[in-house]
Amino acid sequence: MSDARTVEWVNGRVRMIDQTKLPEKFVHVTFRNHRQVAKAIREMVVRGAPAIGVAAAMGMALAANASRAKDKHQFLRELRSAGNVLCKSRPTAKNLFWAVDRILSKAETANGDVQDIALEIKAEAEKIAREDVETNHKIGEFGSALIKDGDRVLTHCNAGTLAAVSYGTALAPIRTAIREGKKVSVIATETRPRLQGAKLTVFELLRDKISVTLIVDGAVGYVLKKGMVQLAIVGADRITSSVVANKVGTYPIALAAKANQVPFYVAAPLSTFDLKERGEIKIEERSSREVTHIAGRRIGTRGVNVFNPAFDITPVELVSGFITEKGIIKPEELSR
Amino acid sequence: MSDARTVEWVNGRVRMIDQTKLPEKFVHVTFRNHRQVAKAIREMVVRGAPAIGVAAAMGMALAANASRAKDKHQFLRELRSAGNVLCKSRPTAKNLFWAVDRILSKAETANGDVQDIALEIKAEAEKIAREDVETNHKIGEFGSALIKDGDRVLTHCNAGTLAAVSYGTALAPIRTAIREGKKVSVIATETRPRLQGAKLTVFELLRDKISVTLIVDGAVGYVLKKGMVQLAIVGADRITSSVVANKVGTYPIALAAKANQVPFYVAAPLSTFDLKERGEIKIEERSSREVTHIAGRRIGTRGVNVFNPAFDITPVELVSGFITEKGIIKPEELSR
Repeated sequence: MSDARTVEWVNGRVRMIDQTKLPEKFVHVTFRNHRQVAKAIREMVVRGAPAIGVAAAMGMALAANASRAKDKHQFLRELRSAGNVLCKSRPTAKNLFWAVDRILSKAETANGDVQDIALEIKAEAEKIAREDVETNHKIGEFGSALIKDGDRVLTHCNAGTLAAVSYGTALAPIRTAIREGKKVSVIATETRPRLQGAKLTVFELLRDKISVTLIVDGAVGYVLKKGMVQLAIVGADRITSSVVANKVGTYPIALAAKANQVPFYVAAPLSTFDLKERGEIKIEERSSREVTHIAGRRIGTRGVNVFNPAFDITPVELVSGFITEKGIIKPEELSR
Repeated sequence: MSDARTVEWVNGRVRMIDQTKLPEKFVHVTFRNHRQVAKAIREMVVRGAPAIGVAAAMGMALAANASRAKDKHQFLRELRSAGNVLCKSRPTAKNLFWAVDRILSKAETANGDVQDIALEIKAEAEKIAREDVETNHKIGEFGSALIKDGDRVLTHCNAGTLAAVSYGTALAPIRTAIREGKKVSVIATETRPRLQGAKLTVFELLRDKISVTLIVDGAVGYVLKKGMVQLAIVGADRITSSVVANKVGTYPIALAAKANQVPFYVAAPLSTFDLKERGEIKIEERSSREVTHIAGRRIGTRGVNVFNPAFDITPVELVSGFITEKGIIKPEELSR
C-alpha cells in the first residue's frame, strides 16, 4: 500500500485510486481533462491536501496538453482559466493553490513554443508528484525520531498514502519507525462524517500489516486521558503562523493532548504552509447529506438542520512540532 | 414529547418507548419480569441514567410482584437476586444502583406480609418515576436562569425526555427557558456510535418544535471556538467529587468550552451523584459492532480491532456548575 500511487500521470491522462469506493472496492479512474479533475477533487475521489495538490498540477498539465492556443499569451489565458476551475474545487487545502501557482509560474517563465511549454508543464506536474513521495519519506525520517519502540500513536482522518501520492504525511513517521524495527501501533479515529479513518486509514494500515485500533471521534479524550497513546500525529490542510486548519475534530484532539501532556504533532510538507496568511482561513462547509446519510441510507431524524464544517482550527500553541521535509519546526518559529 | 413517558407501570407490567426503533418508529414494548427489564437496559431499549434508574426500580417491582416467597427472609433473598441481575445490565450509571438500593431498603424496613411489602415496592417504584418528573422540572427552573433570550445551547448525546421518565435533564433548562418565553436554540452532536443525538435528541426537539442543528462529534471544538453557542449543557451517568462520567465525547466538549470561555454545565438529579466514590469509575466497553456497523451494514474496513468505551471522564474543574433539583452546585462544593 505504501508503494501504491494515489494520483499518477499515465499515457497523457490522470489516473487516481477512487477513494469514494474504498474499502469495498480498490479501483482506478482515469480523467482526460482538468474539469473532470476538479470534479474528482470536489467529490473526494481524491482527497488529502498533498494529493489534491498533485491532482491539481496534473489537471493543469491536462489543460496544457489539450490547448490549441496559437501563442503563449492565449496559452497562459487558457491555463489561468483552468487554474481557476481547479482552485474552485475545494477552498481550504493550501497545497491546491500552491500547485496551481507553481505550474502557472513555470508556464510564465518558460521559453519556446506552446507545445514545448506544455511538455515542460507535464514534466513539472510529474516532478511535483515525485517530490511528494520524497518529501513524505523525509517526513517519515524526521518523524520517526519522535517515536519510541512500543509506542502507540493516535491519528485522525487519513493523512496516509491515500492523502498523498504515496507513503503519507502523518502516517509516514509510523511507517519509517516500523521499517527501522520499532514496534508501533496506531489508534485511528473513524472521522465522521466521511469516515476517512474507518475507510482509508484502517484500510491502508491493515493492508501493510500495521496494528490499528478504531475508535469513534468522541473517544479521543478518553484515550488521551487514559494514557493509551504516547503521541498524536495528524496531517494539515493549511498552516499559518497562528493556526492549523485540518479535518474537523483535530482541535479537540490537540486540546485533550495538551491537557494530558501527550505530544501533539502535525506532519505536513512545506507546501501546506501559508505563512503570509494573516486573516481567517476559509473553512469549507459541505453537504448536510454527508452527516444525515451513510451509503445512501438515512441514519438520523428526517428534516433536521445540519452544520457540516469539513475542517477546524487549532492554535499553533497546542502543537508540539511540525514534522516537515526540512525537519521539525517549532510553532514559535513560524512567526519569526 | 416532553409529556411522553419513557418508562411507565401499566397494569402490572413495565411499558417503555423502544428507543432502538427511534426515530423511524415510535413504538412501546411491555415487560413482564425483571430479567426482560435487565435485557432492555443492556440492549438500550431504555437508556439515559435517570431512565434506567426508574426502569430498574420497576424491574424490582416486577420481581416483588411475581414472588411466591413464604416469608420476608425468602422474599428479600429473591429481591436481592433480582437486584443483582438488574445491576449487571450496565455498570456506569449511578442511578441504576441507587434505584435498586432504594427499593431494597424499602423492602427491608417495610412491615406486613410479603404481599403488603410487594405493594409498597410497586408504590415506591412509581414514586421514583413521579419524583423523576418533578426533579427534572426543578432542574429546568434552576437551569433556565442560566439561559438568556437568544442563546444557543450545545448538548451531547440525549439527556432529554427519552433519558428520563419525562422532560429530561440537560434539555430541561432549555424547555423551561422556552416556556418562559425565551428564544433558545440547540446544537446537538450526533453522538457516535449509537447516534443518540441524531436519533433521539433531534427527534424529541423537532417534535416539540425546538430549533436544533445537528453536527458531527468532531465539530464541537469548531462550534465552541467560533462562538456559535453561549453555553453547553450535558447530562451525567455518575458524578463523584472529582469527575463526571458521561457519554463518550463529553470530555472534549468540556475542554473546548473551557479553552473558549464558554460555560459548561452538567444537569443531573442528586441520584446521579456518588460522592463516597474515591476510586475509578467503571467505564463500560460495548461491542465493536456498534462502531463498525450502522443499521446492520458495515461502514468501515473489515477485520479492524475496535475500542468502544461508552463513557468518558471529565474532571469537575472543567464544570461551571451542576444543575440539580436542589439548585446549582459548584464543583468545589462536591468535596466539602
